[in-house]
Amino acid sequence: MKIGAFGEVMLRLTPPEHLMLEQTHTLRMAYTGTGVNLVGNLAHFGVESYLLTALPDNRLGKAALTNLNGLGIQTKYVIHQYQHIGTYFAEMGYGVRPTEVTYQNRKHSSFGLSVIEDYDCAAFIDEIDLIHICGISLSLSDETAETAIQLAEQAHKAGKKVCFDFNYRPSLNQEDGKKEQMKKRYHSMLPYCDILFGSVRDLTELVQWEETDNVENEHDPISYIQSFMNHYDIQWFAGTRRESVDGRKQLSGYLITQQEAEKTTVYPLDVLDRIGAGDAFAAGILLGFSEKWSLQKTVYFALGNARLAHSIQGDVPLTTRVQVERLLNDPETDLIR
Amino acid sequence: MKIGAFGEVMLRLTPPEHLMLEQTHTLRMAYTGTGVNLVGNLAHFGVESYLLTALPDNRLGKAALTNLNGLGIQTKYVIHQYQHIGTYFAEMGYGVRPTEVTYQNRKHSSFGLSVIEDYDCAAFIDEIDLIHICGISLSLSDETAETAIQLAEQAHKAGKKVCFDFNYRPSLNQEDGKKEQMKKRYHSMLPYCDILFGSVRDLTELVQWEETDNVENEHDPISYIQSFMNHYDIQWFAGTRRESVDGRKQLSGYLITQQEAEKTTVYPLDVLDRIGAGDAFAAGILLGFSEKWSLQKTVYFALGNARLAHSIQGDVPLTTRVQVERLLNDPETDLIR
Amino acid sequence: MKIGAFGEVMLRLTPPEHLMLEQTHTLRMAYTGTGVNLVGNLAHFGVESYLLTALPDNRLGKAALTNLNGLGIQTKYVIHQYQHIGTYFAEMGYGVRPTEVTYQNRKHSSFGLSVIEDYDCAAFIDEIDLIHICGISLSLSDETAETAIQLAEQAHKAGKKVCFDFNYRPSLNQEDGKKEQMKKRYHSMLPYCDILFGSVRDLTELVQWEETDNVENEHDPISYIQSFMNHYDIQWFAGTRRESVDGRKQLSGYLITQQEAEKTTVYPLDVLDRIGAGDAFAAGILLGFSEKWSLQKTVYFALGNARLAHSIQGDVPLTTRVQVERLLNDPETDLIR
Amino acid sequence: MKIGAFGEVMLRLTPPEHLMLEQTHTLRMAYTGTGVNLVGNLAHFGVESYLLTALPDNRLGKAALTNLNGLGIQTKYVIHQYQHIGTYFAEMGYGVRPTEVTYQNRKHSSFGLSVIEDYDCAAFIDEIDLIHICGISLSLSDETAETAIQLAEQAHKAGKKVCFDFNYRPSLNQEDGKKEQMKKRYHSMLPYCDILFGSVRDLTELVQWEETDNVENEHDPISYIQSFMNHYDIQWFAGTRRESVDGRKQLSGYLITQQEAEKTTVYPLDVLDRIGAGDAFAAGILLGFSEKWSLQKTVYFALGNARLAHSIQGDVPLTTRVQVERLLNDPETDLIR
Amino acid sequence: MKIGAFGEVMLRLTPPEHLMLEQTHTLRMAYTGTGVNLVGNLAHFGVESYLLTALPDNRLGKAALTNLNGLGIQTKYVIHQYQHIGTYFAEMGYGVRPTEVTYQNRKHSSFGLSVIEDYDCAAFIDEIDLIHICGISLSLSDETAETAIQLAEQAHKAGKKVCFDFNYRPSLNQEDGKKEQMKKRYHSMLPYCDILFGSVRDLTELVQWEETDNVENEHDPISYIQSFMNHYDIQWFAGTRRESVDGRKQLSGYLITQQEAEKTTVYPLDVLDRIGAGDAFAAGILLGFSEKWSLQKTVYFALGNARLAHSIQGDVPLTTRVQVERLLNDPETDLIR
Amino acid sequence: MKIGAFGEVMLRLTPPEHLMLEQTHTLRMAYTGTGVNLVGNLAHFGVESYLLTALPDNRLGKAALTNLNGLGIQTKYVIHQYQHIGTYFAEMGYGVRPTEVTYQNRKHSSFGLSVIEDYDCAAFIDEIDLIHICGISLSLSDETAETAIQLAEQAHKAGKKVCFDFNYRPSLNQEDGKKEQMKKRYHSMLPYCDILFGSVRDLTELVQWEETDNVENEHDPISYIQSFMNHYDIQWFAGTRRESVDGRKQLSGYLITQQEAEKTTVYPLDVLDRIGAGDAFAAGILLGFSEKWSLQKTVYFALGNARLAHSIQGDVPLTTRVQVERLLNDPETDLIR
Repeated sequence: MKIGAFGEVMLRLTPPEHLMLEQTHTLRMAYTGTGVNLVGNLAHFGVESYLLTALPDNRLGKAALTNLNGLGIQTKYVIHQYQHIGTYFAEMGYGVRPTEVTYQNRKHSSFGLSVIEDYDCAAFIDEIDLIHICGISLSLSDETAETAIQLAEQAHKAGKKVCFDFNYRPSLNQEDGKKEQMKKRYHSMLPYCDILFGSVRDLTELVQWEETDNVENEHDPISYIQSFMNHYDIQWFAGTRRESVDGRKQLSGYLITQQEAEKTTVYPLDVLDRIGAGDAFAAGILLGFSEKWSLQKTVYFALGNARLAHSIQGDVPLTTRVQVERLLNDPETDLIR
Repeated sequence: MKIGAFGEVMLRLTPPEHLMLEQTHTLRMAYTGTGVNLVGNLAHFGVESYLLTALPDNRLGKAALTNLNGLGIQTKYVIHQYQHIGTYFAEMGYGVRPTEVTYQNRKHSSFGLSVIEDYDCAAFIDEIDLIHICGISLSLSDETAETAIQLAEQAHKAGKKVCFDFNYRPSLNQEDGKKEQMKKRYHSMLPYCDILFGSVRDLTELVQWEETDNVENEHDPISYIQSFMNHYDIQWFAGTRRESVDGRKQLSGYLITQQEAEKTTVYPLDVLDRIGAGDAFAAGILLGFSEKWSLQKTVYFALGNARLAHSIQGDVPLTTRVQVERLLNDPETDLIR
Repeated sequence: MKIGAFGEVMLRLTPPEHLMLEQTHTLRMAYTGTGVNLVGNLAHFGVESYLLTALPDNRLGKAALTNLNGLGIQTKYVIHQYQHIGTYFAEMGYGVRPTEVTYQNRKHSSFGLSVIEDYDCAAFIDEIDLIHICGISLSLSDETAETAIQLAEQAHKAGKKVCFDFNYRPSLNQEDGKKEQMKKRYHSMLPYCDILFGSVRDLTELVQWEETDNVENEHDPISYIQSFMNHYDIQWFAGTRRESVDGRKQLSGYLITQQEAEKTTVYPLDVLDRIGAGDAFAAGILLGFSEKWSLQKTVYFALGNARLAHSIQGDVPLTTRVQVERLLNDPETDLIR
Repeated sequence: MKIGAFGEVMLRLTPPEHLMLEQTHTLRMAYTGTGVNLVGNLAHFGVESYLLTALPDNRLGKAALTNLNGLGIQTKYVIHQYQHIGTYFAEMGYGVRPTEVTYQNRKHSSFGLSVIEDYDCAAFIDEIDLIHICGISLSLSDETAETAIQLAEQAHKAGKKVCFDFNYRPSLNQEDGKKEQMKKRYHSMLPYCDILFGSVRDLTELVQWEETDNVENEHDPISYIQSFMNHYDIQWFAGTRRESVDGRKQLSGYLITQQEAEKTTVYPLDVLDRIGAGDAFAAGILLGFSEKWSLQKTVYFALGNARLAHSIQGDVPLTTRVQVERLLNDPETDLIR
Repeated sequence: MKIGAFGEVMLRLTPPEHLMLEQTHTLRMAYTGTGVNLVGNLAHFGVESYLLTALPDNRLGKAALTNLNGLGIQTKYVIHQYQHIGTYFAEMGYGVRPTEVTYQNRKHSSFGLSVIEDYDCAAFIDEIDLIHICGISLSLSDETAETAIQLAEQAHKAGKKVCFDFNYRPSLNQEDGKKEQMKKRYHSMLPYCDILFGSVRDLTELVQWEETDNVENEHDPISYIQSFMNHYDIQWFAGTRRESVDGRKQLSGYLITQQEAEKTTVYPLDVLDRIGAGDAFAAGILLGFSEKWSLQKTVYFALGNARLAHSIQGDVPLTTRVQVERLLNDPETDLIR
Repeated sequence: MKIGAFGEVMLRLTPPEHLMLEQTHTLRMAYTGTGVNLVGNLAHFGVESYLLTALPDNRLGKAALTNLNGLGIQTKYVIHQYQHIGTYFAEMGYGVRPTEVTYQNRKHSSFGLSVIEDYDCAAFIDEIDLIHICGISLSLSDETAETAIQLAEQAHKAGKKVCFDFNYRPSLNQEDGKKEQMKKRYHSMLPYCDILFGSVRDLTELVQWEETDNVENEHDPISYIQSFMNHYDIQWFAGTRRESVDGRKQLSGYLITQQEAEKTTVYPLDVLDRIGAGDAFAAGILLGFSEKWSLQKTVYFALGNARLAHSIQGDVPLTTRVQVERLLNDPETDLIR
């Protein structure tokens, strides 16, 4: 199964050694984004993976392309136009100090300004078997929202699987009326979707799903989600759950079909860099989907991948199948030689 | 309220990534010191903050000044003379390995050699509402001790608040008779003080306070401290308490008036760099003092600030009000975007 | 004389050791811009120097402010609004490989979006004796052009000196009609100016100055410039001239009044980083102006400063008077101890 | 025209800032080799470029692959086997201090041990239009020599162009009888070749070419080379010539057909890193060949590319067509913005 | 007591800040190996310590020697021959991600190729009182195995103490028949040994020790080990034991004579870099042996040393007696100044 | 011949990449000093070389010792006392910008405070054949001056060669009467000396030598120096001469006996780091002296060594005989592989 993603490539700049921006004159540079993370990770799993995106037509775009190619991503649908790439600075937290992300202009980036006609969508959809679309495209600009929804529709009509990641960030949608607009866009997207990444909160708060026919189960989140899945004919719905017990972080995952649900054990987490770990979970789920693994095998692999991603610097999960399987089979190993 | 500190600026040199001095050819450079930490942090809280100190009259003094200005400290009372800056090397510990600080010549530094006539004390005292003096000035050199005590006296007489940090380091006072001399100097300082940072141990061991009129309370540290405060007419007495339970570090804080006492919850600590965390606590207390917050609000803010300071590389607490308040109100947040 | 500048603060990101963007995962970070360079350098000369600009209201704006303060610039007129700072990447050239600058979105930066009402212009003009305005403000956005011209007018009317740097970049003005618009804006600016930084080419190509009354001197660039100065009642007109002889770079400078003209010797150049060297020349000229030096002393100091700036990494000239005078008086010194 | 190379991938480790190995605890890491340099550069020119090589089947092989992909090289014919990659340390010289290269075990590397059956040669030759083979393969191991010669033969028979780079290193061939063996291998290779990179010295010393029928031209190197080309029916013979005049380095290039010869101007050289510059020249020649440029256009482009390569850190020439053409058309440009 | 070790010097290359090889262009470089770790640590304890090894006869061998000398190791028996040093890359793990070591060619290194005649064994044995031999020598190459066994025999016959570290790595011995060969080599070595570092598993799996005369104690590992020690007349047998409880790592140590056995408390471990910690334990045991400390003092010192080694970057334990004693006497200290 | 030096060990801190102190948060750390440079270089030439010095008795002293050992210097006469090491910061110049050295407190360093009784002088003198003493010891403190003169006297009386380097720095001797005191100390030293490093200016300005019997040769510097050598019975007098022609630096060397004089060609210089290059020249002279080379061979080797030292980062010349001889025999080589 060939997998493609439509999504923004961002430049990530990180001060070294947990320093804050005021404390350093050097930054670590990487290229990232939900789509990059996902297809970069899938390429590490041996899946032929494509990215549909727009990069600046300048030296920075060239450097970004070098990094995408380095990850093993197929870049023949990447276009180069305009001059700007969305950027973020990540001041890495420690202990009680949270990681702080500062975004720089994303709306006017080469990706943010791109319209659907800029891309060779037909060939892209023809090439792949499954398309992944990130919810951030729905809020970034009118142009990216339009492209995302049309891509989903075209892919769906072409008989390709459509995977959508809610990835709703309240902080990016604080303007008046923005949330209502977002709800509308999400509802336009959902009829074309086969796989969703999200949470109960996305359903209650964002798409404001209300069960009508199933009153007695109101406290059962799984049947609530399944009723939603049933409505939109979603095959898989998956996500992770973060908790904190006595100041120690924990992570578990779930994967739900219209009939079944699988939840993992709750694992403790030692976090080196949590950005991108959700994308690692998604990559694991899509690998299981593409290889027709059982729900249980899939969700444990995906969560193992997400746990490993928390222990890797940077957004892009560089994990291989061997590494994930070793964690699952031999979790005490701390030195390989 | 405008706050000023009299104190040494030191050059701190730190090997990267927990390396020891033998293992590295590179060092991270920063400018620090109790006074710098305190007024640098207060400047980040929006307080107009001044430093009275002496820097070398050479390229290093220029670099130090750049860093003080960068912190937002008002430097117009900083003087430049002689050629040497006190220096320390901090080999950062990990796990069971303690952080090791190696001091280089502080006594003959521009600050250590400075006498009170070198400074424009009158203007400095006139400018500020509260002066902070660090106990290290009392042991560094006869000159700095003399200046510290006279500054306290002049500020007190001018109706300004005087804040004194015991900050007694037995290791810096091991010469014969030094401890006795120190006791005398501390007793000269205390009559001018309004706010003290210290601990019961400072009172019992250093100033050797003995309650005469209050025998029945001998096991009650708070009334013991209050009897001392009463004697010297101290308004606030504050400090932190470090503990270790099952190998896990913990921190709490207290703030005592002549009538009341407030202690915080005991919090677990993940330590990135503990140097300077005490100064963060002091900065928080002085902010509460200057803004007339309640004891409780003050001590929780100060301790939150100290906890954050443990999670920041370097001595100088670069925390803002927003960051401290977020920790207090939303302690589980580990990613802001 | 107190000097203020109106100009953009940019984030500069530079790969280490002449590497290209594709070759590195680390970048050196600095804050720069014509105004920053100029007043930062003047602050190093001991001039009280102010910057009027807009920084993002986020962590990056805070880091930028730290750097401006560190340079010794007075920042009380700096405002914080919006979220974006103009950025550029500088791939440092070597030998036949030119340095390549890649700009990221400047138009939508906090500065690019700022309008004159955002600033406290009256107080700023009142505070300073001379205002420096950079020609880039005229092309960056309609808002910054408007602000630049109004500031010049207000300062002129308030009896303050106005210094304008042509700094015209054809590459930033390639849209249709942009050059014509620029010419108009430059002509709006000129009536308020006392000091100009520019070249004959700026006069012929950009403002398209044609001498009408002085036909016989058409091949004499100095009288051509003086006729222009006479028309707009300009006091000083200054600039540098780059040449290359047998592959070796050379630099000279000139300073012209309506009556006189002074040119320096032509000096060979070893270039470490040429960005910002023009601003160093301008800073030297303004220092001479403010201290009423002779033309000759001024232009040699300014050119010495520019030559030193070519030997310093980064845009901001960190030179002191001592360093410039040492170069002028003792040019063979290569080691000071 | 699709171009492929057969060659070793090496790990290059370089101390930063001209330091020697004893002075540093950090190294810069890159993946390089004549084939990598050539096809990596051609990929930057927009040519579809392939590498046939063997990498270790471990984490290091994965990292190498990341870097090859990043360069834009097509890697589908790259195989992974064994555990070792050839390595070299480059202590960068300065002034009178030469750059010193220290090789680590190349013979037992994954490439050194590989035999022709390990590769999918048929598909590789079928895919490409021109194969580049480096002379180092002839001396590295018996296995690589055998593979190189067979590849040349197969490609030649399949009607593909064969390009061979003499690249003879006396230091790698000092064992008894090695030179004689090398001569034999070179003679086995030559009948299949269309394009050669070499020098007169390669012909006189290594392959020991003696003109028999053209005695009168013994002092004319071009007709000497052409008689050799005529014998082996070589289309193009190209190379560069390094000189030093008054301690200043210079470079020129030549390109010879059986009838014609084109030599470039001699250019001065400022050298940042000369390793790989010969491969840049070769890449330029092959670009001209594939695009059917004139001899003159080709050799000037190739030499411009080589001159730029001297100004880039590392072996792999990352130049683009735009950069080379800018050097040729506008050689004085030292800052692009 | 003068202590010498026979063992390989390896080059260790480590990406900074827990990065993986794909994520970095820089590496930290160090020289290491069981022998280096052991005698380097002993030199830090003030023991005159010697290394018998072979380094490349090139710049890399020179750099390695610089590092050995820097550690305070006596290097007069170090020889320089051939061109290659065994190398390994350590991608440092974090949380659930294990540290991954990737070895590069060790068998063809200067050490791997060395034969006993290359060394001045007689003088070396004459110089020292105790020789330490690492089990890796037995599996690295036939040459190093031969040298190791002969050195043990010669030292034993000369009345010197022989210490042998099992250090058996199944992953290095996976070829057919290799394990059987290893068993034979270990049995050849044992008759000359006085001190062993190993575990029950080494006895059961590798040397396949079976007690014949002591059937009733089959579940008592100590008497099992003692029966083995008795057979080969071993004085001391020591080792550490790693456990993991609720995901938290723990370490304890044991030291056994033919009559007695001492086990330490089990301590929690915070791990910065666990490679080399076993060598730290060995160094502590040998220090106690050479200074005739009690079993208890020895094993607690050795384990304290091993615990500290887990908190130091790199393989070589740089601990001093002062540091180990401080951990034992004042375990809560986390800041020394 | 075994050579020993008495001299200060300093900590050198250098900003990377020609940055100034204000521009960086990282520094490169090295241990240096005339004695270190000299015997470190001689150790690289294979000479058994000793250092007599005092290091701090703390972590910094340990790190310094590691570095001395790493250089191959014999350190058994190094003592550890007090807490401070002399430090200097070197801001590396470029082009017209000179390198600026900023010293930190040297007088109160462990070396500056040391008295002759602290050292085991008798054993040191007994061990070596030639002692090198640096003129800086004469001006650093009364204690070091006293020790230097007594060491020279004792060595001379013991029949060992005494080598003295004038190394007079006017900037270190600006106090009233200091120059007169220095003159006296230099005259106390000279009667014990066999080899001197200096210049005509040292003789005329510092020791104020006046020829009495040789009036006619007043314009002949060599006979002037020889008359001085004759007076004090000096064997060898050597030094280098720096010139600048058309902005290009040049270097030559001379070596004078009482009868003969040898001067080298004048060579152009490309300077990476000139600090320590004079010590490289001295090391070369002492090597020639100890190996009884001809004057010509000696001075050319010494100057070649000094030229190489200008192309090495840091003070300590790490050159080997092979490298110097390669420069002399094959000066055009710029790449060794």
